[in-house]
Amino acid sequence: MMIDATHDPGLRSWVESANGHPDFPIQNLPLGVFIPQDRGPGRVGVAIGEYILDLAMAPLAEDVRAAAANPSLNALFALGEGPRKDMRVRLSSLLAEGSQHRAVLEPHLHLQEACTLLLPARIGDYTDFYVGIHHATNVGKVFRPDNPLLPNYKHVPIGYHGRASSVRVSGTPVRRPKGQLKSPESDTPRFAPCERLDYELEMGVWIGPGNSLGDAIPVGKADSHVAGFGLLNDWSARDIQAWEYQPLGPFLAKNFGSTVSPWVVTPEALEPFRVPQPARPDGDPAPLPYLLDEADQARGAFDLALEVLILTPAMREKGMGPHRLALSNARHMYWTVAQMVAHHTSNGCDLNPGDLLGSGTISAPDAGGFGSLLESTQGGKEPVSLPSGETRRFLQDGDEIIMRGRASRDGFAGIGFGDCRAVVLPAN
Amino acid sequence: MMIDATHDPGLRSWVESANGHPDFPIQNLPLGVFIPQDRGPGRVGVAIGEYILDLAMAPLAEDVRAAAANPSLNALFALGEGPRKDMRVRLSSLLAEGSQHRAVLEPHLHLQEACTLLLPARIGDYTDFYVGIHHATNVGKVFRPDNPLLPNYKHVPIGYHGRASSVRVSGTPVRRPKGQLKSPESDTPRFAPCERLDYELEMGVWIGPGNSLGDAIPVGKADSHVAGFGLLNDWSARDIQAWEYQPLGPFLAKNFGSTVSPWVVTPEALEPFRVPQPARPDGDPAPLPYLLDEADQARGAFDLALEVLILTPAMREKGMGPHRLALSNARHMYWTVAQMVAHHTSNGCDLNPGDLLGSGTISAPDAGGFGSLLESTQGGKEPVSLPSGETRRFLQDGDEIIMRGRASRDGFAGIGFGDCRAVVLPAN
Repeated sequence: MMIDATHDPGLRSWVESANGHPDFPIQNLPLGVFIPQDRGPGRVGVAIGEYILDLAMAPLAEDVRAAAANPSLNALFALGEGPRKDMRVRLSSLLAEGSQHRAVLEPHLHLQEACTLLLPARIGDYTDFYVGIHHATNVGKVFRPDNPLLPNYKHVPIGYHGRASSVRVSGTPVRRPKGQLKSPESDTPRFAPCERLDYELEMGVWIGPGNSLGDAIPVGKADSHVAGFGLLNDWSARDIQAWEYQPLGPFLAKNFGSTVSPWVVTPEALEPFRVPQPARPDGDPAPLPYLLDEADQARGAFDLALEVLILTPAMREKGMGPHRLALSNARHMYWTVAQMVAHHTSNGCDLNPGDLLGSGTISAPDAGGFGSLLESTQGGKEPVSLPSGETRRFLQDGDEIIMRGRASRDGFAGIGFGDCRAVVLPAN
Repeated sequence: MMIDATHDPGLRSWVESANGHPDFPIQNLPLGVFIPQDRGPGRVGVAIGEYILDLAMAPLAEDVRAAAANPSLNALFALGEGPRKDMRVRLSSLLAEGSQHRAVLEPHLHLQEACTLLLPARIGDYTDFYVGIHHATNVGKVFRPDNPLLPNYKHVPIGYHGRASSVRVSGTPVRRPKGQLKSPESDTPRFAPCERLDYELEMGVWIGPGNSLGDAIPVGKADSHVAGFGLLNDWSARDIQAWEYQPLGPFLAKNFGSTVSPWVVTPEALEPFRVPQPARPDGDPAPLPYLLDEADQARGAFDLALEVLILTPAMREKGMGPHRLALSNARHMYWTVAQMVAHHTSNGCDLNPGDLLGSGTISAPDAGGFGSLLESTQGGKEPVSLPSGETRRFLQDGDEIIMRGRASRDGFAGIGFGDCRAVVLPAN
């Protein structure tokens, strides 16, 4: 692993709130776009403790400062891993205890609470994968009891195109969609507000440098095309989906809104938490050569805890905090991010800086780690109980879903992704 | 129908080549983006006979000129139908025989042949529908012999998200994709160049003013959100598709490239060719209320001939012209464009100016009008014969596919869409 001084758990920042911060210690340094004090256009920033450093005001390399002078991360993503790694080393030193630049930088720190965080990038295209094998199996049972995991699943990193326009940053409410619903008892559908609204716990992958149309990205080079990671809630209308999805896949069941976390955690920050891709169970086919890379197999997975919580109106009224619905881990991906990128471009499809990939729902094998209500409630059959005395088969208006990601490992400072949250509004 | 003086078949232009031009008489006036003499950035233009008028140089309304000062049509699309209709009336008068503006405008005419035509708009999102019912039935037979048309087809305008990044303008070659192919005889897939490369004859719909996330566009107002129309070749790798498409739909089988025609034909130009939506056969369900509008039923279809031609390397060598593979018509759409737009936004999904919708393959009911080789060759079983003595089950390297659209009607000047063409390059 490429561990360097920026990962030193003993490293402290002169930004006091960073030291021991569960999400944003100096070892993280995730990138985002913010509006200071709700004024002016978006600016590129880096999270440090309770603050955001305005990146364009920091003494960084010329190309990085120029790229940071935009209301989105696209230009910074396009620079690629070399400049990004240099920037991390430099930022780590600028923000470290004892830095001579403290006086220059301090005026350019903004309290996160006072800022508005924006979508990190202009998303050209958004692709959602399906690499959470436990999710694919669980969902397959609901839609196709006899045939949960299709024959292609262990050969093909299954993915499909999602809607880029309706991706919103954490904190933006999501409106319950209307759509065609058809119950098994009825011959015909009706048009009504979704009755089976669900979340999906996913990891988001932000694309850095892209490829030209026609030129595949080899799996061994795919990681260098990844700019960073976030959390993604792929809101899903199960009743709309069940009726519309044959033969061309989910459409209106998904494109009414997707929520991403505002901070982009770099591959460098996640470096200490890389683990080998879990060995495939006996009998599973080996990946085809275009998907197989030794280094990727050795370090392509992430040991990253992923959590979903719910806060209902009744819980808010009672002064209760959010209740955990599931604890999963990014290790439960059947395909690595590099395999997703290599597969996506294997036919020559072009990726561009700022494109977003979703992992697909990442469920743990056990019921405490299911990444959607569809799984936790067995398709709505078994409601989950909440500490407020309420139950949920699917989401109700006013419910807030909160997703969190945290990486920790002995000998390293833990880092987090920040919240990915949104409240459900009633249908229009 | 809203027919006005701009549709007068007796109207002639001082641009002599426009008079009697099969595609671009003064009654058409489609919009596009061009580079004059291969120099400089893209400019917005209008096709008139063999020429392109540089729109930003014409004496038009201020908002139109400002919108035209861009290398894409997005800003013009965003203005909506009011300014676009005014622009048409004004352009028609400026370009008509006897116009006092001839001397001012003539220097801003560019010979089409000498120009490079660009993609008309920056495509935010691209959605492909499936409204060609004969195609859906024919393809259904290949993939699901027992169940060609699924139960949702006559209730739901089926659509899915395509890839915006890999849409290219007519004239850009398309590279044969590689992908996972699995023959019925084999248990496992192999990675190889596509062996069943196909075209799909579609109508493209360019979106004008969009909607806010959460706000549906009612079917009765959907037409005012359409900026214009073009042709779309939705290149398809049938072997990749057959293996990958379950359960989430086509992905790498489609996103290696899609070709659009460069000219955007406005709704105004197509006004004389609107016809009632064909009555649904007895027994078909009525559309749900959110998809049903009386005016749309009365004028939502287009009588527009759609043609696919092929030119193989051997045909080129023998000096032969392109050979017609199919003649279809836009009337064979089971759902109208307004129904597509209303359905797409019925859950609150936001459309934006420059978004592209594809109709899905439009096949006629008879074999002479099938919009893909998959249909014409019955899944590759019956090769089509070419006048060069060659046959094709699927496309070979070097084959060029040309799509054309032409509208004609007694009492009106016929108009055309211009070519949508691309050559197949060998796999990398």
